[in-house]
Amino acid sequence: MNHTDAGAALAFAEELAQEAGRIALRHFRQPLDVANKLADGGFDPVTIADREIESFLVGRIRARFPDHGIVGEEHGALDGDSRYSWIIDPIDGTRAFISGVPAWGILLGLRDAGRCIGGLMHQPYLEETFTGSPAGGWLSRRGERRRLQTRASARLADAILYCTHPTIFPDAGELAAFEHVAAHTRLMRYGGDCYSYCLLALGHIDLVIEGGLQAYDIQPLIPIIEAAGGVVTGRHGEDASGGGFVVAAANRVLHAEVLARLAEAS
Amino acid sequence: MNHTDAGAALAFAEELAQEAGRIALRHFRQPLDVANKLADGGFDPVTIADREIESFLVGRIRARFPDHGIVGEEHGALDGDSRYSWIIDPIDGTRAFISGVPAWGILLGLRDAGRCIGGLMHQPYLEETFTGSPAGGWLSRRGERRRLQTRASARLADAILYCTHPTIFPDAGELAAFEHVAAHTRLMRYGGDCYSYCLLALGHIDLVIEGGLQAYDIQPLIPIIEAAGGVVTGRHGEDASGGGFVVAAANRVLHAEVLARLAEAS
Repeated sequence: MNHTDAGAALAFAEELAQEAGRIALRHFRQPLDVANKLADGGFDPVTIADREIESFLVGRIRARFPDHGIVGEEHGALDGDSRYSWIIDPIDGTRAFISGVPAWGILLGLRDAGRCIGGLMHQPYLEETFTGSPAGGWLSRRGERRRLQTRASARLADAILYCTHPTIFPDAGELAAFEHVAAHTRLMRYGGDCYSYCLLALGHIDLVIEGGLQAYDIQPLIPIIEAAGGVVTGRHGEDASGGGFVVAAANRVLHAEVLARLAEAS
Repeated sequence: MNHTDAGAALAFAEELAQEAGRIALRHFRQPLDVANKLADGGFDPVTIADREIESFLVGRIRARFPDHGIVGEEHGALDGDSRYSWIIDPIDGTRAFISGVPAWGILLGLRDAGRCIGGLMHQPYLEETFTGSPAGGWLSRRGERRRLQTRASARLADAILYCTHPTIFPDAGELAAFEHVAAHTRLMRYGGDCYSYCLLALGHIDLVIEGGLQAYDIQPLIPIIEAAGGVVTGRHGEDASGGGFVVAAANRVLHAEVLARLAEAS
């Protein structure tokens, strides 16, 4: 698969996401049978939609690219012989989903030797699809395309920071580090899940800082953020694709400011 | 103005809200000139859209009902000779608005002797209009209407609680009382502004607890919540229409549970 083929694979992913979105909308804002996948009784809703969408995506990708591996939230990893593989979060933001809030999204990423080279987030209730690859980043809605572009001029003192929820950080130290950064911004708000990273790519917010992420929560978003001019790394500037503590920033200067503030909090 | 006239006035309000929504969308997700109306330099964005919408609504209401009083966020109170008056929040959720998050709304309420008898919330990006009056509560979207109905069976232990942001509470005591209630729910999430009260009316979430509200933040929402079967009061069960600390609950039993938990926290 060369560059052209990767482009075709991403176009295929966009079509799949539209179909997956229609599955999601059959369940969104309906009474839900919320399963609980945590044995310890903690709250982690997995909806029927979550499972249906992942099964749908895995089936369609396997049919089209039988040699591609697939990593999914629900079904785990399926190996493939190709250097290319896919990573899927069928519904990122299940708590928003069950609350009727359209800030969840279907995440799909195409990887080359484990590195995400193309990603998309689809929010079907809003009819929005965010895509990113080395060829550029776009928001598509109702046939119109808007190029994604972060705020190049944003600095920490005038930045808008988002984070899904304070309990997203697995320990008090990470939360304290987040709050130390937040204290130096113009505005911090909670909420958003995957949607916040897309608003950063769109240039409306400037920072997303979260902890405890899974690989499938962040990998499909990395090409979107980078295509828009943003920077996304771990807490110390390392590759963010493994998940965990993640800093997404609108530009390199802002990103460096955040890493310096995080170092102060260590 | 009899009951029929009140119904006609609400129908008029729905038309106005659609026009106001088009004004809002000209500014939503555009670079904004955000004015700061707080003399002390605190962050309280007032957009051009906010002012344009209120001017538009005031002008149109005055032309149609010259004797009605109007209370607005931006322009203050305009007296009228009628027992009827209007209350306007041109953009509730300005922080969401500037962040590109479609959880803000245009709020409009019709009052009889100071009590809100009809209310609406319009979210133009989502094309959603929530209305409530003694004649019933409805979500209108793209020509379809869905009757608003809260979850009658919701109890505190399985409730979903929303609140815009922890800093919405003006003091540590109110925040602690909120957190005491939150600890007894199934799920607490931040975010939402006026939109959360509408999700409660729609039956997807069960509780909204906030502090420091203005009268125009809550009055237009009260008829929507009540028409759907919900209950909204102050912390001790008193009338919520003055704003301040507000408890909105999906049903009377849940509401009583919350007031008992709040009393424990006093």
